[in-house]
Amino acid sequence: MTLPSSPDPATAVSGHPLRVGVVGVGVMGADHVRRLATRIANATLVAIADPDAERAQELADEPGAGVRVIADPMELIADDGVDAVLLASPGAVHTEQLLACIERGTPVLCEKPLTMDSESSMRVIEAERAGGRALVQVGFMRRFDPEYARLKQLLDSGDLGRTLMLHQVHRNLTVPNPHFASEMIVRDSLVHEVDCARWLLGEEIASVQVISPTPTRHALEGVVDPQVSIFRMASGAVVTNEVFVNSRTGYEVRCEAVAESGSAIIGRPASGIYTTRTVPGGGAGSWGGGIDPDYRTRFERAYDLEVQAWVDATRRGELVGPTSWDGHASTVVCTAGMESLATGAPVDVALRAPAIRA
Amino acid sequence: MTLPSSPDPATAVSGHPLRVGVVGVGVMGADHVRRLATRIANATLVAIADPDAERAQELADEPGAGVRVIADPMELIADDGVDAVLLASPGAVHTEQLLACIERGTPVLCEKPLTMDSESSMRVIEAERAGGRALVQVGFMRRFDPEYARLKQLLDSGDLGRTLMLHQVHRNLTVPNPHFASEMIVRDSLVHEVDCARWLLGEEIASVQVISPTPTRHALEGVVDPQVSIFRMASGAVVTNEVFVNSRTGYEVRCEAVAESGSAIIGRPASGIYTTRTVPGGGAGSWGGGIDPDYRTRFERAYDLEVQAWVDATRRGELVGPTSWDGHASTVVCTAGMESLATGAPVDVALRAPAIRA
Amino acid sequence: MTLPSSPDPATAVSGHPLRVGVVGVGVMGADHVRRLATRIANATLVAIADPDAERAQELADEPGAGVRVIADPMELIADDGVDAVLLASPGAVHTEQLLACIERGTPVLCEKPLTMDSESSMRVIEAERAGGRALVQVGFMRRFDPEYARLKQLLDSGDLGRTLMLHQVHRNLTVPNPHFASEMIVRDSLVHEVDCARWLLGEEIASVQVISPTPTRHALEGVVDPQVSIFRMASGAVVTNEVFVNSRTGYEVRCEAVAESGSAIIGRPASGIYTTRTVPGGGAGSWGGGIDPDYRTRFERAYDLEVQAWVDATRRGELVGPTSWDGHASTVVCTAGMESLATGAPVDVALRAPAIRA
Amino acid sequence: MTLPSSPDPATAVSGHPLRVGVVGVGVMGADHVRRLATRIANATLVAIADPDAERAQELADEPGAGVRVIADPMELIADDGVDAVLLASPGAVHTEQLLACIERGTPVLCEKPLTMDSESSMRVIEAERAGGRALVQVGFMRRFDPEYARLKQLLDSGDLGRTLMLHQVHRNLTVPNPHFASEMIVRDSLVHEVDCARWLLGEEIASVQVISPTPTRHALEGVVDPQVSIFRMASGAVVTNEVFVNSRTGYEVRCEAVAESGSAIIGRPASGIYTTRTVPGGGAGSWGGGIDPDYRTRFERAYDLEVQAWVDATRRGELVGPTSWDGHASTVVCTAGMESLATGAPVDVALRAPAIRA
Repeated sequence: MTLPSSPDPATAVSGHPLRVGVVGVGVMGADHVRRLATRIANATLVAIADPDAERAQELADEPGAGVRVIADPMELIADDGVDAVLLASPGAVHTEQLLACIERGTPVLCEKPLTMDSESSMRVIEAERAGGRALVQVGFMRRFDPEYARLKQLLDSGDLGRTLMLHQVHRNLTVPNPHFASEMIVRDSLVHEVDCARWLLGEEIASVQVISPTPTRHALEGVVDPQVSIFRMASGAVVTNEVFVNSRTGYEVRCEAVAESGSAIIGRPASGIYTTRTVPGGGAGSWGGGIDPDYRTRFERAYDLEVQAWVDATRRGELVGPTSWDGHASTVVCTAGMESLATGAPVDVALRAPAIRA
Repeated sequence: MTLPSSPDPATAVSGHPLRVGVVGVGVMGADHVRRLATRIANATLVAIADPDAERAQELADEPGAGVRVIADPMELIADDGVDAVLLASPGAVHTEQLLACIERGTPVLCEKPLTMDSESSMRVIEAERAGGRALVQVGFMRRFDPEYARLKQLLDSGDLGRTLMLHQVHRNLTVPNPHFASEMIVRDSLVHEVDCARWLLGEEIASVQVISPTPTRHALEGVVDPQVSIFRMASGAVVTNEVFVNSRTGYEVRCEAVAESGSAIIGRPASGIYTTRTVPGGGAGSWGGGIDPDYRTRFERAYDLEVQAWVDATRRGELVGPTSWDGHASTVVCTAGMESLATGAPVDVALRAPAIRA
Repeated sequence: MTLPSSPDPATAVSGHPLRVGVVGVGVMGADHVRRLATRIANATLVAIADPDAERAQELADEPGAGVRVIADPMELIADDGVDAVLLASPGAVHTEQLLACIERGTPVLCEKPLTMDSESSMRVIEAERAGGRALVQVGFMRRFDPEYARLKQLLDSGDLGRTLMLHQVHRNLTVPNPHFASEMIVRDSLVHEVDCARWLLGEEIASVQVISPTPTRHALEGVVDPQVSIFRMASGAVVTNEVFVNSRTGYEVRCEAVAESGSAIIGRPASGIYTTRTVPGGGAGSWGGGIDPDYRTRFERAYDLEVQAWVDATRRGELVGPTSWDGHASTVVCTAGMESLATGAPVDVALRAPAIRA
Repeated sequence: MTLPSSPDPATAVSGHPLRVGVVGVGVMGADHVRRLATRIANATLVAIADPDAERAQELADEPGAGVRVIADPMELIADDGVDAVLLASPGAVHTEQLLACIERGTPVLCEKPLTMDSESSMRVIEAERAGGRALVQVGFMRRFDPEYARLKQLLDSGDLGRTLMLHQVHRNLTVPNPHFASEMIVRDSLVHEVDCARWLLGEEIASVQVISPTPTRHALEGVVDPQVSIFRMASGAVVTNEVFVNSRTGYEVRCEAVAESGSAIIGRPASGIYTTRTVPGGGAGSWGGGIDPDYRTRFERAYDLEVQAWVDATRRGELVGPTSWDGHASTVVCTAGMESLATGAPVDVALRAPAIRA
């Protein structure tokens, strides 16, 4: 599958800071508003839009933000003062908003999921290609994490020979959502492992098998948590995944790549500060450290680098990072994964090329 | 499945050091001869037997050994001056030799495999039970490794809640054998992971699935290396395994247990001495350490503790450590594993209870 | 010693991005030019000045920079379009340039050393105080390194009780300078340990003792490298330091704080990516990783955060981070250190308060 | 200083297991009784002596011990059934007991201190030399710890060039003794660092300086704890030491050697099992492990290897490990250390060669 080509340099806006509008001010959107207002060079946050106008206004009033609030997202997208859009609205409205951006030729950084199903994500790809320019970067932020980036660089260097296997682990502290369901582990958590496997190995996933261990007692009744899954890649490489969203220990993301002449691990919690401590009540102490509880702290630097890279590339009239094809492919793999979750058997991933090539 | 009961105190020989005979002086047998001669308390090596009389004599002549050489293993087993037998002969002759030991009521430490197939291992179990005493300890030495023992103790303590998953990794530096075949990875390497899974989780393996990634270029033509396999335990816990015998990095054995309130890892190569070093040719240096190349160095302490525990228990008239049932069960699982290797599909493990209970 | 108070809010320039001029485009200056042009929010690089006009022009022509070149640093400082100055010129011209900035009320981020001796640095402090506003932040970037910041936060939290000792290690790969002298290890390298000790413990250094081990054969003839030094703090806490500038292994900076109820270590090279590798020529492999060769890669994030914090604080009319007093105090300690280097005996640090208090 | 030569082969007793008598059944003596009874090859524990006959009898009655109790240590030493003596009596009676052993030509493993002062330890050396045979091994068990042994081997290999510095850390959990005094930290704890420095670097200590930080609030009134000390070696290498006996975290012993082409660290608590755990009360968890509380668990393997090496060497008529000279030299250094503790200034170590050479 050929990846979409770079967009026309006409998209470039390098003469002035990139004027960014943010659509959606939920958890991630609010995070991005503060990021753009205080940590990103060569960008100016100019507008935010959310149906919840009060929340939008509160955020606009924060020091450093000082931006216009626009009630209707479609109006923000249509605004002449907006050079580029950061889309952090709910996935269910992404298709319409993405198509509007593409229609206007506006570059967009879209939080995952690209859209809710493969049909709609294919429509986005086809609209982009019809317009002749790749405009959509998908928010798989791990690709910008310094450790993941070094791992990618090491594997691509060929120093370790061909990569044969990945072992991926993804643990969350807990899931407070009372409506949480097993499929959400595949769609919202495993999706990151899907993107990492495709990106690190540089190839598509051919089949996926999701295995259901007896759940932890901390899972909601009926929810399969943890899950073990296996990806078989197009080349025959194999990826094992553990996703465990009620680990009760913290947010742990780890990846081990095993190649012909060595292996590499990232995401060991042993990084950073390291303490010894008295154990309350006496007796001998312990050594070690804390575990990040939250993906926003674990991947804070990755988010910053992701948004900066998007701003920089957009000003140069280019697109870097994961594309709409990556968003689509991950959706198709997760759909197969949800099917496998029901049976435990491997399910083939059926990726179709888009109808129109750029 | 009830494990065999402890043997009759009549087996006890605590009045004097245990007089041990070693059968088989190949790589492991020679290692055990030197161990008994120089590192084990309350035991005296009294005789060694091997069809290769010359090699046996060389070993007997080493400082500290100073023991009788007996050409015929069956004669050594029958010798009145031998209280207990350490069996390190080829697996193909184990059945006959084990049955002779059991016939005489002689305790035996048998290197794995117990026997070559499940029918013969069941015969050993039934002979033992007919005699009313458990006499056979099987050489799954990892159970005596201090790190594994601490992991077992931690999991059994209940501090981490129920164990949900194990992730096991088993890498060898290289396999020099020019007749090496894919099935041998299951039978000779995965067998250790089989025993660890059964022991750490305290339950049987219900099914096994062996997945074949595209092999490393360092594998012999036609050999599937590495292999990824999945055990589903009777309780529903899931175990993932990587076995990679041409890793080209060294002998790495790692086990991560993931439980309801935490996880534990053993076998990280980060243990022990740690250096920084100049890289030849200039430029910045590196930090880290070497990897044990050989199972005999990695598990030297485990072997010592295994043999000492066997000597101590035998002198008390007891049996500790893995039993003939453990040897049998691991053989049955590996047989299912070899069947799965051919297809990639899960294969159920059919364990039958022995005909006679002790 | 009371630290200088926050400057008057009149300094604040929050209505627009901070317009920054950079003086000096040597190694650090060029680094800061690129940083300001591409990675810092709410700042605009507007001008650079350096006696080497050609080098300044090359840098100004880099993508993203696009700034004015001003030959005379004093002219840049006097420019009405410059809100704040980043001073990366040689230390020998700092006094004059700092006094010019203070004269105009221009906030300045001054690379270390503040000035070349304690008399001139005291003049800077007194000029600042005469003007009634703290305007000078000194470039001790480690205070902004995330690991150091967490260590400081942990020690200040009181969770570990009072801090009793620090053990600091500072290693460089090599020193190519053919005119390198022992005193430069104290003045240019140990100075960072001086600032860390003062900052982490929140108190002044009372005496310093520099001990001279037999040098490495990689040191220039006559140069004492490595050096071991001891700080005794005002409270009686003790700090040990190793500085080794021809370590031949890389740039390693480590700090261990030992307190009444535990200890904490930062800067272990074990952080980040971790590999196993084949050793060329066969035999078993190794585990570990590379060591940063250069302070600019090790502390890249610290420099970014330092400059961003300076921009942010300046726009709020505030000053954060190390002050001119910190610059002065470190100079006084290093002067005592150079005296001790000659004798090996402890030398008392004589810090005088400035004549005028803010 | 030439180390004493190996003893005459006449001492060898290799024809039968070494018959060992233990003098003193305090904490270490009891530990050694159990070690000899259950974990040491080619030795038979035959007798124990202690003024507290009741305690001696209890120990003799333990399973596996089954030995004679002799009230008078001098009688045990004189017993014809005792080939070698393990001396674990109080240091104050060592001189008399050692001289009795030497008089009879009996090999002895003597727990540290060799004797209470340098005059008496010199008498022991001279008695040994007068007899023409080295008979005394001193119980500096760290030399037998596998990590220390690998460090020694690495430094001796020359791979890292000449060793320039050691950084040693020695922490105890707590000191329950209500009569504890600052000097005891030098004499009983720092003495191990003294021996390690002499052994690892293969040279004598020329001077010692003991620095007194403000004590932890957990120290007894008037006791200097922690202590920082500096050894200057004969060659000019420098050793820094932290000894902290009320660390409240556990028993931590660490040594970093810094050489011309790299460094090496042993004793990091990161070794062994590694867990993540829920923190009680919710919130994110932690990673890490426990710290050994006790020297007997941290150095259990070292003690076993020490005693086994002593038994093996004695049966060969040889002496390995630290000698009476090492015991004497460490006493002389600690005497200088106690003098420095009073002043904080460096004190030269005055080692005299013994009057008679072997």
